[in-house]
Amino acid sequence: MFRRFLLLAFLLPCISHAQNNDSLIIRKIYDEALTNGKAYSWLDHLCNSIGSRLTGSDNAAKAVEYVNDELSKLQIDKSYKQEMMVPHWVRGEKEQAWTLVNGKKVPYKICALGGSIGTGEKGVTSQLIEVYDWEEMNKLGKEKISGKIVFLNHAMNPKHINPFESYGESAKYRYATASKAAALGAISVVVRSMNVSIDDYPHTGAMGYVDSIAKIPTCAISTYGADLLSTSLKHDPSLNFYFLQTCATLDEVVSYNVIGEIKGSEFPDEIIIIGGHLDSWDLAQGASDDGTGVVQSMEVLNLFKALNLHPKRTIRCVAFMNEENGLRGGKKYAEVAKQKRENHIAAIESDEGGFTPRGFTFNGDSIQIQKLISYKKMFTQYGLHDWVNGYGGSDINPLEDQGTMLIGFSPDPQRYFDIHHSALDTFDRVSKRELELGAASITSLVWLLSQYGVK
Amino acid sequence: MFRRFLLLAFLLPCISHAQNNDSLIIRKIYDEALTNGKAYSWLDHLCNSIGSRLTGSDNAAKAVEYVNDELSKLQIDKSYKQEMMVPHWVRGEKEQAWTLVNGKKVPYKICALGGSIGTGEKGVTSQLIEVYDWEEMNKLGKEKISGKIVFLNHAMNPKHINPFESYGESAKYRYATASKAAALGAISVVVRSMNVSIDDYPHTGAMGYVDSIAKIPTCAISTYGADLLSTSLKHDPSLNFYFLQTCATLDEVVSYNVIGEIKGSEFPDEIIIIGGHLDSWDLAQGASDDGTGVVQSMEVLNLFKALNLHPKRTIRCVAFMNEENGLRGGKKYAEVAKQKRENHIAAIESDEGGFTPRGFTFNGDSIQIQKLISYKKMFTQYGLHDWVNGYGGSDINPLEDQGTMLIGFSPDPQRYFDIHHSALDTFDRVSKRELELGAASITSLVWLLSQYGVK
Repeated sequence: MFRRFLLLAFLLPCISHAQNNDSLIIRKIYDEALTNGKAYSWLDHLCNSIGSRLTGSDNAAKAVEYVNDELSKLQIDKSYKQEMMVPHWVRGEKEQAWTLVNGKKVPYKICALGGSIGTGEKGVTSQLIEVYDWEEMNKLGKEKISGKIVFLNHAMNPKHINPFESYGESAKYRYATASKAAALGAISVVVRSMNVSIDDYPHTGAMGYVDSIAKIPTCAISTYGADLLSTSLKHDPSLNFYFLQTCATLDEVVSYNVIGEIKGSEFPDEIIIIGGHLDSWDLAQGASDDGTGVVQSMEVLNLFKALNLHPKRTIRCVAFMNEENGLRGGKKYAEVAKQKRENHIAAIESDEGGFTPRGFTFNGDSIQIQKLISYKKMFTQYGLHDWVNGYGGSDINPLEDQGTMLIGFSPDPQRYFDIHHSALDTFDRVSKRELELGAASITSLVWLLSQYGVK
Repeated sequence: MFRRFLLLAFLLPCISHAQNNDSLIIRKIYDEALTNGKAYSWLDHLCNSIGSRLTGSDNAAKAVEYVNDELSKLQIDKSYKQEMMVPHWVRGEKEQAWTLVNGKKVPYKICALGGSIGTGEKGVTSQLIEVYDWEEMNKLGKEKISGKIVFLNHAMNPKHINPFESYGESAKYRYATASKAAALGAISVVVRSMNVSIDDYPHTGAMGYVDSIAKIPTCAISTYGADLLSTSLKHDPSLNFYFLQTCATLDEVVSYNVIGEIKGSEFPDEIIIIGGHLDSWDLAQGASDDGTGVVQSMEVLNLFKALNLHPKRTIRCVAFMNEENGLRGGKKYAEVAKQKRENHIAAIESDEGGFTPRGFTFNGDSIQIQKLISYKKMFTQYGLHDWVNGYGGSDINPLEDQGTMLIGFSPDPQRYFDIHHSALDTFDRVSKRELELGAASITSLVWLLSQYGVK
């Protein structure tokens, strides 16, 4: 007891001094991000000079070179590309859809889901069968479904305060309805967009097929269109729906993760990564999904260099490729880390938009979590109150079995699903200040992790 | 000690039961706002069918009738208009400004400040003298200032995490530079817009003259324009600036506050108000300043009625007139309250936009504050962590000397000054969910105040 007391008496002033010093460094990080940050101009280039960055596209290749060039300009210890093969799905022509009401075409806004097959040049025409969920679809069974287009009209629940919770409940209908409906004889699927708002923008996103079941074309319809279609079906249950999409999956191509590194001064073998994904969907500019995550991750290295901060542990920024439709980048990164027996102590992901920072979600053992939560008090003055157990992120998740603590950056979630995977995901919807505050928050956490580790 | 223990033992289960019940009611309030709220469609009408609502304008008059009609449809106990005289300033023609560089016009985006006189039809042309603040201007003195246009180029400080702090430091330059510059012989003033971002939208706002000093025309220039002008002046300090504005102050006219009321069931003489201001500046639609505050205040009454909630104390929604350039509505309301010897126990104002709710600022005695803070724990799950002493709001401030507790609603502040008083303050920049979450937060607080008072 006496020894313990002595130890505490000795340590306390140090801890207090360290925290005080860290608080000053964190303040400098925010000041620098808010006055000289590079994140916003990098995002401007990614969105307005390059544009959408679908995996396998020319734009994705341009973005790889751009990020690698910009990282190399930061005079960090190294920047490099990590090669892999990636899927190459293309949308083809702009999709078309309509119903015929009294002989007149009523058009609907749709988009093919990523990974779907096309309809063929003639499109698909058939009666619709509207269902709210799989349970309802299965109850109707082959007799009612066979030969028809399944219209899966599941609205995201607006009552959850955090819309990511609603997305977690609903996104399976986008990903996995095709094969379930095909097993019942459906000829194609139309899914209500994953969007809480009612508007006329269809939202794309990944879907997948079960190998043993026939592949059928699958598209998303805008929430406004879904409501209109549902109403029309109540008036005329025999309504025919037509849609055309010419999307296709081509041969795989070579692509890359892009990595930048600042070597740790004392524990260079302990690695902390911060990443976002460089690929995006193709309907807009991939601004908030996930241009913001990429430029915030790059900004971490920029702020360390600009402020002459020397991490004790190695920090890496990773711009992952192919998060949206394959996760090849995240898998490749973890695979190489394992091969090289690298020790990744923590991984942070920013893939929920560049909105005002609210906190972090994390996944680790009790000692890691206790240590992380001890930092919270240095962040509440910057508005980061939400430090909760939860998911880290798709791209860093493959590192989980290497004992890495996984941390997700949590910005304000309210506007994300209005724009997510739709034509609205553009640069002008990103607030410069919100983006910079997020970059500063992440950099501050990386600073603490780089000094004190996670144990 | 024993008696106190007994009392606590008796009270605790009741408090716990009440809080549990209140938590359920609060959850219902959020659910209703997020699924059947009327705030967004009211705002749509105010912005897209009526438009900007400058005090004294036809649109302001239309908005008064609209809000009164909509409140009367809620089947509340009463709704009525409260008459007053208001100032009537008009902008006139679209302003023009340019410099001549090598004989070529370089145009700048400016707007007259509210309350300013016009330049006359010929406009004003003179050399510019750029200053950062009043101290620099006063040091230059009459010799350097006389006959010139003062260019007050004070940038809002981006380092404050809450931009309202920066606004608090800088807004005086917009309001009060004219007379200070005129006292030194300046012939007019150009003020850098109150905006943290760099863009080409001038931001208007109120300015005032000191009676004994000559009135000179005053305008705001966009932040981009201010930076360009500053750079141009470094190349050519003798640069001439021309601007034309035809604004004028007309005779005062009649206008109104609009008030809706639900009578309290047990303490009808104890009144709680929630308000926003119905007037706006004229460059856009007054969506976030302060359409959102008005519709959130109306929504409080709507949610009470929709959920069949019966307040023990009287609650009133007040749509104040003329907050922007005179505060006649706020003053009139407080004056009538005093005349009628009404007991306003609390007043809440929403005038910082309809963004995601963060908390409340408040101004009251220690017992009121203690009681208010005791509610915080019921709001943190909805993201309202910031409960701090501070300013309530301009329209409710005249109630301060009646012992009323003043409470300001605090939404996320990061995007407000990008759009504030500029052409960007439009409906499409308001998020439906954020608006509804704010309305639910305010209604929940009004519920608690209506049940338990402030003492």
